[in-house]
Amino acid sequence: MEFYKPSISATLPVMKTILVLGAGRSSSSLIAYLLEVAAQFSWKVMVADYSLEAAKLRIGNSTHGVAMMFDIEHEENSRNTMASADLVISLLPPHFHPVVARHCLNLGKHLITASYVADEMKGLDEEARSKGLLFLNECGLDPGIDHMSAKQIIDSIHEQGGKIISFESFTGGLIAPETNPENPWRYKFTWNPRNVVMAGQSTAKFLQEGKVKYIPYQQLFKRISHVSVPGYGAFEGYANRDSLKYIETYQLKGIQTMLRGTLRNHGFCPTWDILVQLGCCDDSYIIDGIASMTHRDFLDVFLEGSKIEATEDKIIRQFGLAADGPEMKRLTWSGFFTDEKIGLVKGTPAQVLEHILNKRWALASNDKDMIVMIHRFVADFHGKSKTIQSSLVVKGEDAVYTAMAKTVGLPMGIAAKLLLQDKIKIKGVVIPTESELYKPILEELKTLGVEMMEH
Amino acid sequence: MEFYKPSISATLPVMKTILVLGAGRSSSSLIAYLLEVAAQFSWKVMVADYSLEAAKLRIGNSTHGVAMMFDIEHEENSRNTMASADLVISLLPPHFHPVVARHCLNLGKHLITASYVADEMKGLDEEARSKGLLFLNECGLDPGIDHMSAKQIIDSIHEQGGKIISFESFTGGLIAPETNPENPWRYKFTWNPRNVVMAGQSTAKFLQEGKVKYIPYQQLFKRISHVSVPGYGAFEGYANRDSLKYIETYQLKGIQTMLRGTLRNHGFCPTWDILVQLGCCDDSYIIDGIASMTHRDFLDVFLEGSKIEATEDKIIRQFGLAADGPEMKRLTWSGFFTDEKIGLVKGTPAQVLEHILNKRWALASNDKDMIVMIHRFVADFHGKSKTIQSSLVVKGEDAVYTAMAKTVGLPMGIAAKLLLQDKIKIKGVVIPTESELYKPILEELKTLGVEMMEH
Repeated sequence: MEFYKPSISATLPVMKTILVLGAGRSSSSLIAYLLEVAAQFSWKVMVADYSLEAAKLRIGNSTHGVAMMFDIEHEENSRNTMASADLVISLLPPHFHPVVARHCLNLGKHLITASYVADEMKGLDEEARSKGLLFLNECGLDPGIDHMSAKQIIDSIHEQGGKIISFESFTGGLIAPETNPENPWRYKFTWNPRNVVMAGQSTAKFLQEGKVKYIPYQQLFKRISHVSVPGYGAFEGYANRDSLKYIETYQLKGIQTMLRGTLRNHGFCPTWDILVQLGCCDDSYIIDGIASMTHRDFLDVFLEGSKIEATEDKIIRQFGLAADGPEMKRLTWSGFFTDEKIGLVKGTPAQVLEHILNKRWALASNDKDMIVMIHRFVADFHGKSKTIQSSLVVKGEDAVYTAMAKTVGLPMGIAAKLLLQDKIKIKGVVIPTESELYKPILEELKTLGVEMMEH
Repeated sequence: MEFYKPSISATLPVMKTILVLGAGRSSSSLIAYLLEVAAQFSWKVMVADYSLEAAKLRIGNSTHGVAMMFDIEHEENSRNTMASADLVISLLPPHFHPVVARHCLNLGKHLITASYVADEMKGLDEEARSKGLLFLNECGLDPGIDHMSAKQIIDSIHEQGGKIISFESFTGGLIAPETNPENPWRYKFTWNPRNVVMAGQSTAKFLQEGKVKYIPYQQLFKRISHVSVPGYGAFEGYANRDSLKYIETYQLKGIQTMLRGTLRNHGFCPTWDILVQLGCCDDSYIIDGIASMTHRDFLDVFLEGSKIEATEDKIIRQFGLAADGPEMKRLTWSGFFTDEKIGLVKGTPAQVLEHILNKRWALASNDKDMIVMIHRFVADFHGKSKTIQSSLVVKGEDAVYTAMAKTVGLPMGIAAKLLLQDKIKIKGVVIPTESELYKPILEELKTLGVEMMEH
């Protein structure tokens, strides 16, 4: 691999430079936005990826972008690449963020990510602050737009003298109603498929009527909240890992009920629960004999009953399903009862499940995904209880400029612009729950078609 | 702590000496047996424990035993203690066995345990062999008597020209029918309570009709085998972690169905499953606010529904139970719906569950436990299929000389005697599946009231 070597002039940027690390699936809208902004302000966008081709693809024929090869595990290359930027946006897998952050501290660069603040990142707060740097995290969709839109409503309720009793919030990356209408799951993989298969395996923790409650994995997809979004119908929500985490950050001390969750279309969770109950999402052991197995064989290894009984009949009996019911329809549509070879040499149940699902759930080029987010507040205004509901629906354009890429990428892009315009004063390791951040970001998102609707 | 310091004569034993490491719950019958044997042959039994008092208690007024203080984490003390023995029996927690085995190798001592052979132990096989030492493991009840009794039948079937098609085996540590008759679980803690609470959390793997099958934890207590033991009624069996492990050792290559499991009384598993489904057996996180909680509060944190609904009603609704059904009867008997304080400052769900259960499930001094083991073979004799069933029932005398202590300890005691009598020739790291071991051990067990019945 031959890396970009900065000349002396490159290490002393004359024009403002934004470096994007990672040119994968979720970078499309961010980089398109940054290239437009760069054109407007005569800035430069560097896109660095392990694959030079991937980086070039994102730049296209823009004259404001530079593509480069990049390897975060190569120390010198990392340092050189980051040295020539004013600001780093990292789309790398979250476990690399501390490495990126270390370089940023040494080189005096700001950093923006859409990932959760890990303890290691949190530990850099003081040093970042003392060096006058902003390390802005959780600035994508979820976490990101959820924080910003929720905090805007919370601050407004507080300003009106209200006290928040209950807050529930759900976000889901789904597909648009017009996409793949025969797909009974109303779902496709619009982000990391592995994360979808592994979702929820830690016990969920939330607050209900003043008490901390727990839902283990084996109950998670049974204990769903029914959520209706005006104009878009009925959805199902299941609880995220830790809903209590943001009580302080959101200034919600004393709140009685707080639940953050993931949204799926009606009927998804009861069918997914069958896969969970069977053990298909287990990633802890290698399953025997995968190389010679069919899709049908895969389900069968988890089912009770003799080999003379059909896989379908076993699952119907074991879970008390209707033979022509919605659960069997979804499983059948996903090809679980075909004699198609799996096509993996080895794998854990979770890896095999992901592989089989991906055969039907990969986005086709014309598919449009859809992000749905909804907040429900109950607040007490001097003894009068009021319910405030706010929702966001964003549709993607195609399989590249997805709603997911848009809503994850644009908040980071806008934050980057504001920062280079010197419009953000806050320093240190932060998330966008301060009005200084959420106000201008939400405002510009509105102009880009990403807007919460209150009802 | 002041340890035993050997004099020169003590390091050159004039009489044969057996060292027992650990004087805990499961050592009673073993030590009583060894003291009798020692009296008969003029041998010596050293009982070494972290608590000198515990060791003394086991020796009682026998003149053939010596009690000593012992700490396996104290290298010199361990070496000195083992140096004065001909043979070491380790009842220490299994993770200490490799340390004990290392000392045995260095000092040239035989070793007997009732624990599973871990990889580290397996790795010492060649060295033990080359030094002429026997490291006999899995020589208790389960593993132990199960191996010996199964292998005896297997060898006999093979000698008669039979081919084994199917083998299922279940063992359970239960309570005798006359003990605690009002206890609807028909269960008490007769061995390590923590292991009971944590049982089954890894996916179970077994062989059915020539195919490898898996049962995840969330299905384990639902997918039970119904097992009837002549004279003792109906039991339930759930699958152990890996039933395929002994196919080679048992010489069962080509077998179609193989399942090893744990036995419980009828009705235990469906109720235990409720605790599993709720997440009460989870040991991965500290539960919030335990210090101020009651038994009822504990169940309630895992239940769906508002605080105005009673805990009992929630659980009845969530699991579709009958209000006066056997599951509610068992949970009520265990005190889950009382307002008694838990009495722990902090803990994981599994730790809290163990603590609550122990209030009713600790053995009272006059309680008699009961071991039940059953093997079911289907063998083909030149085209004719035959079913062979063999079972073992052993009752304890009281809370000290339990059936568990008897069946775990006596096989080790007998093996120790045979070894010092020079009647065992096999060397290296072994388990008792060779006739040289299982024949004389099973024979003597019979005279001690531990006998499998074929039917």
